[in-house]
Amino acid sequence: MSKKILKIKFYKYHGNGNDFIMIDNLNGTCDELSKTDVKLLCDRNFGIGSDGLILICKSENLDFEMKFFNPDASSSFCGNGARCAVAFAQFLGINNQKFKFSAFDGTHEAFLSDKKVTISIQDVQEVKEINGDVFVLNTGSPHYISYDSSLLDDFVEQARKIRHSASFLPEGINVNVVSEIDKKTLKIKTFERGVENETLACGTGIVASALSYLYKNNIHGNSSIHVISAGGELLVQTDYSKNKGFENIYLTGNAELIFEGVFDV
Amino acid sequence: MSKKILKIKFYKYHGNGNDFIMIDNLNGTCDELSKTDVKLLCDRNFGIGSDGLILICKSENLDFEMKFFNPDASSSFCGNGARCAVAFAQFLGINNQKFKFSAFDGTHEAFLSDKKVTISIQDVQEVKEINGDVFVLNTGSPHYISYDSSLLDDFVEQARKIRHSASFLPEGINVNVVSEIDKKTLKIKTFERGVENETLACGTGIVASALSYLYKNNIHGNSSIHVISAGGELLVQTDYSKNKGFENIYLTGNAELIFEGVFDV
Repeated sequence: MSKKILKIKFYKYHGNGNDFIMIDNLNGTCDELSKTDVKLLCDRNFGIGSDGLILICKSENLDFEMKFFNPDASSSFCGNGARCAVAFAQFLGINNQKFKFSAFDGTHEAFLSDKKVTISIQDVQEVKEINGDVFVLNTGSPHYISYDSSLLDDFVEQARKIRHSASFLPEGINVNVVSEIDKKTLKIKTFERGVENETLACGTGIVASALSYLYKNNIHGNSSIHVISAGGELLVQTDYSKNKGFENIYLTGNAELIFEGVFDV
Repeated sequence: MSKKILKIKFYKYHGNGNDFIMIDNLNGTCDELSKTDVKLLCDRNFGIGSDGLILICKSENLDFEMKFFNPDASSSFCGNGARCAVAFAQFLGINNQKFKFSAFDGTHEAFLSDKKVTISIQDVQEVKEINGDVFVLNTGSPHYISYDSSLLDDFVEQARKIRHSASFLPEGINVNVVSEIDKKTLKIKTFERGVENETLACGTGIVASALSYLYKNNIHGNSSIHVISAGGELLVQTDYSKNKGFENIYLTGNAELIFEGVFDV
């Protein structure tokens, strides 16, 4: 028997150029989407094309569940994807300005004001210092943060080697190069695992860069750090103490609808 | 006065992974589309994303006019784009199986059978031999064809240098590396001017590769050459004689609808 054709209504959003296919799956229509379907939908030449696919699903206790897939159909948390998911949840009329939703790494809160979406990020207790310039931490996804600008030469090739290096197997790691503009502003370049290329912005990488900066420079208390990527600027806020690590972490920035469409799988 | 928002209904097609935004402009709604609009629509993160944008416009004497824009909003002829334009013209009900249309480089004929679209390419009188391994010819767009496989190392970087080299200024050139699989089959890799990157397939490059092969090997008469690119296979047919050059050139392959959508500009 041939597979039944599913007409999928989708919306394309971006957060700082990090772009996602959003699907309203509140009624479960897309529960059976296969890995092959996800890969095709995310393909930029043969499909819709995106840095990831997000299903907005029903949740028992929360406003919604966000199911995120990378273009290779693997699952993880995605910060900019989560910000787009919240904007889409508002568009769907799930709530107006405040949201609570579950994702790959647990529960998140979110707030909308104007076109800005703020999401909470899980507390981060551990920052692993590889050397004074390199840090590894998990902000929903694992990140390698380097302050060594020599990584910028042939960035994608060098980053791909780190992403696949033995130390981070089997799950791999996202690779970021960070530089300080001033005490409140960082600049970042990110190679994303799952996309397997440089992206214009990566939410969890941007959070990881800000936390690593506060850790590296022993800046305790409440901080706000602006992080600039090729796709624009995001704001990271957090409380940092030696005892408790990073708490009350928030990521804020734009999340915009680009277009809507219909795709048959 | 702020610009009026235009709701654009579009269709995304691909020919061997060479992907295009197709717009029905028979009523002239999109005549005023600006270069900025075209660049945004073709952007893969902030827009719909594609290797080019095609407006199907009314023609006085022919079935339609195909207006093609590269992602940088420049104009040229595009072979795979033309094949997709014909499939879309059939979808729009302009004709059924035979078409005559005008494009950047003149008038073309086209035939559809199953999902295969065949288009005619303008006669080619001149093949410029740079050396035994490098040829330059124009098949609607200008092409640099090299049989030197050392160009495959760091292909995009090497191709970009040739594309911008003084010899081909101001209009630049598309860069192809071709290898012979057997006497009827070639393999090709193309860097496209306007896209400014490697693409999965390039129709005019594939035609140029087949013609250069017949020229290089002095194969006269009627020939059919299969050309394989990363996006699939295309068939080139032509008559070649020393006196008249290349006549009755045809390019055949798939052209498929991927999805449809609506975008506000």
